[in-house]
Amino acid sequence: MYFTTISSSAEVSAEALAVANNALFTINNLWILMATVLVFVMHLGFSALEAGLVRKKNVVNILFKNAMIIAIGLLTYWLSGFNLMYPGDSFAGGFIGFGGFGLDPGSSGQTADYADGSYTYYTDFIFQAMFAATCVTIVSGAVAERIKLNAFLIFALLFVTLVYPITGMWKWGGGWLDTLGFYDFAGSTIVHSVGGWAALAGIILLGPRTGKYTKKGIRPITGHSMPLAAIGVFLLWFGWFGFNGGSVLSADANLVSLVFVTTTLSAAAGAIGSFGISYLMTKTNDLSMVLNGILGGLVGITASADAVSVNASILIGLIAGMIIPIAVAGFDRLKLDDPVGATSVHLVCGIWGTIAVAIFGDFDDPNVGQMSDQLTGIVSVGAFSFSAAYIFFYLLKVGLGIRVDEEEEEKGLDIMEHGMRAYS
Amino acid sequence: MYFTTISSSAEVSAEALAVANNALFTINNLWILMATVLVFVMHLGFSALEAGLVRKKNVVNILFKNAMIIAIGLLTYWLSGFNLMYPGDSFAGGFIGFGGFGLDPGSSGQTADYADGSYTYYTDFIFQAMFAATCVTIVSGAVAERIKLNAFLIFALLFVTLVYPITGMWKWGGGWLDTLGFYDFAGSTIVHSVGGWAALAGIILLGPRTGKYTKKGIRPITGHSMPLAAIGVFLLWFGWFGFNGGSVLSADANLVSLVFVTTTLSAAAGAIGSFGISYLMTKTNDLSMVLNGILGGLVGITASADAVSVNASILIGLIAGMIIPIAVAGFDRLKLDDPVGATSVHLVCGIWGTIAVAIFGDFDDPNVGQMSDQLTGIVSVGAFSFSAAYIFFYLLKVGLGIRVDEEEEEKGLDIMEHGMRAYS
Amino acid sequence: MYFTTISSSAEVSAEALAVANNALFTINNLWILMATVLVFVMHLGFSALEAGLVRKKNVVNILFKNAMIIAIGLLTYWLSGFNLMYPGDSFAGGFIGFGGFGLDPGSSGQTADYADGSYTYYTDFIFQAMFAATCVTIVSGAVAERIKLNAFLIFALLFVTLVYPITGMWKWGGGWLDTLGFYDFAGSTIVHSVGGWAALAGIILLGPRTGKYTKKGIRPITGHSMPLAAIGVFLLWFGWFGFNGGSVLSADANLVSLVFVTTTLSAAAGAIGSFGISYLMTKTNDLSMVLNGILGGLVGITASADAVSVNASILIGLIAGMIIPIAVAGFDRLKLDDPVGATSVHLVCGIWGTIAVAIFGDFDDPNVGQMSDQLTGIVSVGAFSFSAAYIFFYLLKVGLGIRVDEEEEEKGLDIMEHGMRAYS
Repeated sequence: MYFTTISSSAEVSAEALAVANNALFTINNLWILMATVLVFVMHLGFSALEAGLVRKKNVVNILFKNAMIIAIGLLTYWLSGFNLMYPGDSFAGGFIGFGGFGLDPGSSGQTADYADGSYTYYTDFIFQAMFAATCVTIVSGAVAERIKLNAFLIFALLFVTLVYPITGMWKWGGGWLDTLGFYDFAGSTIVHSVGGWAALAGIILLGPRTGKYTKKGIRPITGHSMPLAAIGVFLLWFGWFGFNGGSVLSADANLVSLVFVTTTLSAAAGAIGSFGISYLMTKTNDLSMVLNGILGGLVGITASADAVSVNASILIGLIAGMIIPIAVAGFDRLKLDDPVGATSVHLVCGIWGTIAVAIFGDFDDPNVGQMSDQLTGIVSVGAFSFSAAYIFFYLLKVGLGIRVDEEEEEKGLDIMEHGMRAYS
Repeated sequence: MYFTTISSSAEVSAEALAVANNALFTINNLWILMATVLVFVMHLGFSALEAGLVRKKNVVNILFKNAMIIAIGLLTYWLSGFNLMYPGDSFAGGFIGFGGFGLDPGSSGQTADYADGSYTYYTDFIFQAMFAATCVTIVSGAVAERIKLNAFLIFALLFVTLVYPITGMWKWGGGWLDTLGFYDFAGSTIVHSVGGWAALAGIILLGPRTGKYTKKGIRPITGHSMPLAAIGVFLLWFGWFGFNGGSVLSADANLVSLVFVTTTLSAAAGAIGSFGISYLMTKTNDLSMVLNGILGGLVGITASADAVSVNASILIGLIAGMIIPIAVAGFDRLKLDDPVGATSVHLVCGIWGTIAVAIFGDFDDPNVGQMSDQLTGIVSVGAFSFSAAYIFFYLLKVGLGIRVDEEEEEKGLDIMEHGMRAYS
Repeated sequence: MYFTTISSSAEVSAEALAVANNALFTINNLWILMATVLVFVMHLGFSALEAGLVRKKNVVNILFKNAMIIAIGLLTYWLSGFNLMYPGDSFAGGFIGFGGFGLDPGSSGQTADYADGSYTYYTDFIFQAMFAATCVTIVSGAVAERIKLNAFLIFALLFVTLVYPITGMWKWGGGWLDTLGFYDFAGSTIVHSVGGWAALAGIILLGPRTGKYTKKGIRPITGHSMPLAAIGVFLLWFGWFGFNGGSVLSADANLVSLVFVTTTLSAAAGAIGSFGISYLMTKTNDLSMVLNGILGGLVGITASADAVSVNASILIGLIAGMIIPIAVAGFDRLKLDDPVGATSVHLVCGIWGTIAVAIFGDFDDPNVGQMSDQLTGIVSVGAFSFSAAYIFFYLLKVGLGIRVDEEEEEKGLDIMEHGMRAYS
């Protein structure tokens, strides 16, 4: 009789373990899917922010670009990007690899393999696809109000197809930067700086908007709707809980909750830091600086959100925020015209965040996150993505033209490129 | 001593199984609740989209209608809708059934019964209630700018109380269409077409807005705020992760992740398809077509999101998007004036999505999703919901009048019905 | 051989139990984090609502205040608020206690202790921190369009640092009101009334906006953008799923789903109740009353969302909605000028919701939620928070001035305090 007991107990144990493993897998997978939804909202955040910060005559244009970028980003990532960024062992080298076109969940179909990770193949794809589309959205704001629509869309297609997945692979696909010990938790460099470098290449080749830099000095060109800009920033913050929180790649309670705290407090400190410095510089209570300070804090903590103390996260965000007004003024001095401040937020604070890893990061492995490795990552990713973007924009400039003519800039891209107005 | 060991091991096994079952149930239930929250956001999405696409003088009116529809939809679903749509075995026939007024979690109280599903009674109710309210929101955009407020609210009350739950029961409540093998995963027909048919009945009986169809041709009446419209579409996409993802009715990792991928890529392809065709038709970069293309892709994939391959989902979305500009032009040719394109998006793409099930669907059961069954579902649901909506609108027209007078249409519904302006 | 079997079965059991416990802990923790994200969105909701309901000339100001309040609220809660509200056994008295500055996950690091709750230390902190910031956001709308920026920010800092955590501790930190049997599930009193009392103190000391109450009667000063206001209310409703749902403090399927249903139906009934009474009072279809009715229903159910029947929740919301137009008219009669109706929504409906606990609440423990205890809570929390807010505002009035001068009020705070316009 007790043999039966043993047997039945063993069966119950096995069943319990299977159910428990399934439950844990399901929760981990679900969190990455929820995070995907949150990262999706960032596209709305970028759209609203950029639309708010451009003039009334260019609003349809920026919305059109952002809607198309999501479509392009997602579809190219399905076609080739995912397998370029995550080529898998058989297809990878340190610098480049390619696992083939389209999606292939493998012989197991889409079946979840508990031993093999915390989420399904399709979850992996869709979370990463949202990141890819994000990267190019960063560019659209910086080049706004003067770039030709077709040139921008071709650029976006090339950049998200070829550049983002390759530098992404260097770190997240197990490439040479990963081997080196470069650390970038959720992409201060791999996502934000990459977008920021492309933005910089674009604004150099495009030149400033007409009338921005005059003999009498810098003429501020203010956005047409601050509520729209503020909604955008709040939605970006909202989405960042998924961007950073989902980058834990599981629902691990300790790590995800730590990441939520560091991310949130860094954003809050960024608002204070940016407000403080901008108040000192201009003696005004500048809303756009507070908003960009929040974003600076978010970009700054993105490389290290899981690897620094709470106190350090506040310092990282505070410094990121303080950088913002200085960077904005600096770019203006160099006559690099960025209507939304994307280069200050994503490029400069992305670099700062990546450096901050080496200053504040706490790693068990002493070979990870060293300053030299961080700088190697910043420089190599920057060199590749800036050069590639510069070449793409340059070829487009020569072949097609990238800047709208004076009349179009004057009358606005909405009427000239889209035949409609944003408001009527 | 080892008897104790056996005994204690058995106890641990039993406890482990109970905890594991509870964990799995909790995660499944939580996902449906999170999906409910996402579907709720679709009401904001519809409100913003419709508000953006009407003229400035009718914005308060459309917001008022949408706010009231949610309240009416939720409360009538509590009063009778839920038990009309899901009457339960004892109260159901193939065509109609009714489980009584109000909510009754049964003898077990609200206690979760693991054997009986993946979520609680209250979770089931609230998820379905959000769907119900969604259906009527589709109508409000199509009849905008000329319908009387009281007539619309009475229509909404009747339609959501009587029509949506009954055709819904035919499929999701275990009625005759379900028995037949008709397949509609998350409601291309059961939700979107039903709303679309009602919209069509409304615009037929109302007639077009004054000045829309003139002797000189069709005069475009553009919306007053494209940012608002774009925010609406992005929020609808956001909410659709819950609409389709939650329709898995559990947090099953494989199915939910597949549904996320098919839904997302179909939406992206819809944008491309709609842009392509509208560019060919008009040679302009029409933002409203890109936005409606996204929605078309979402509606199109809704019937089959869990039952088609990723590649098929892209094709379904692409075709849905291509349909949009053609359908919009077609309705205009027929002088059926739909200010927001709701009939093109929800009715036409809803039909396409339901047909697509039979073309691309992959089912283990050969009796499910056949073309004849799909067409039977489309026609029967369409006939019932269109007829019912037509009768309701007709009776209201005779009894109360459904169209505002010329002066009111000219001055705008905001001032005349609400005594206020949207902007000041 | 069967010894081995026994042993292995025991090991499997133990592993299964550990995995199952971990899964359950992870899902509970994740829900509180997701709820945190939803509560975060309420800040955007408040910002949009308040921005929509003020005049065009004061929009940047209200957005600036709301952005800064989040930063201030989160950082002070990190610095001292969390340990003032939840001092822990060693540091607590019935009325006040303090667990020290900063965050300290304790000797276990941040390690999750299954025996000790449903979430990690950091999850606890970040969820509560979002609530803290919410409380002061309520004030900013009521004092809008005439308060000095620096005075408001200092007030917000003082109030969120000292008042909210102390009265919060009385109930949620295990203080004297908790011992007494006072019941306030998610904060009708502890969050909403506290903010409402502070708002009342502010508007008494500030006085009404110039031109609001004239010899000829009350002049309505309408908001500048109803779409913005409507977006705000929908987003607040969206966030409330986390505010109330997260206050279950676990993902318990039965409780969270009940809370979703009571919260949602109360909001829906609030819309109907407010519309009905306002229609009777003014014979207009007032959108702002429907929107505030939704909020009234939400505030009203917040104290009892887990402790009343579904039918009772509808009644609570309906009454809360009916209160709104009467309270708004009442405050206007008293010449207490509240541009967004925050006192009617958060203070009056907060009191109603707390009383409703004693009328409709169903408790196993007869010492919980009695009318006398509820009234004690309402009066004591009200007396403390109103007095403290009054003193803070009074000292600021004497020391710094709290009201902008006439010219600034006339020209708008955006130009005078921020040197920019919301729209251009």
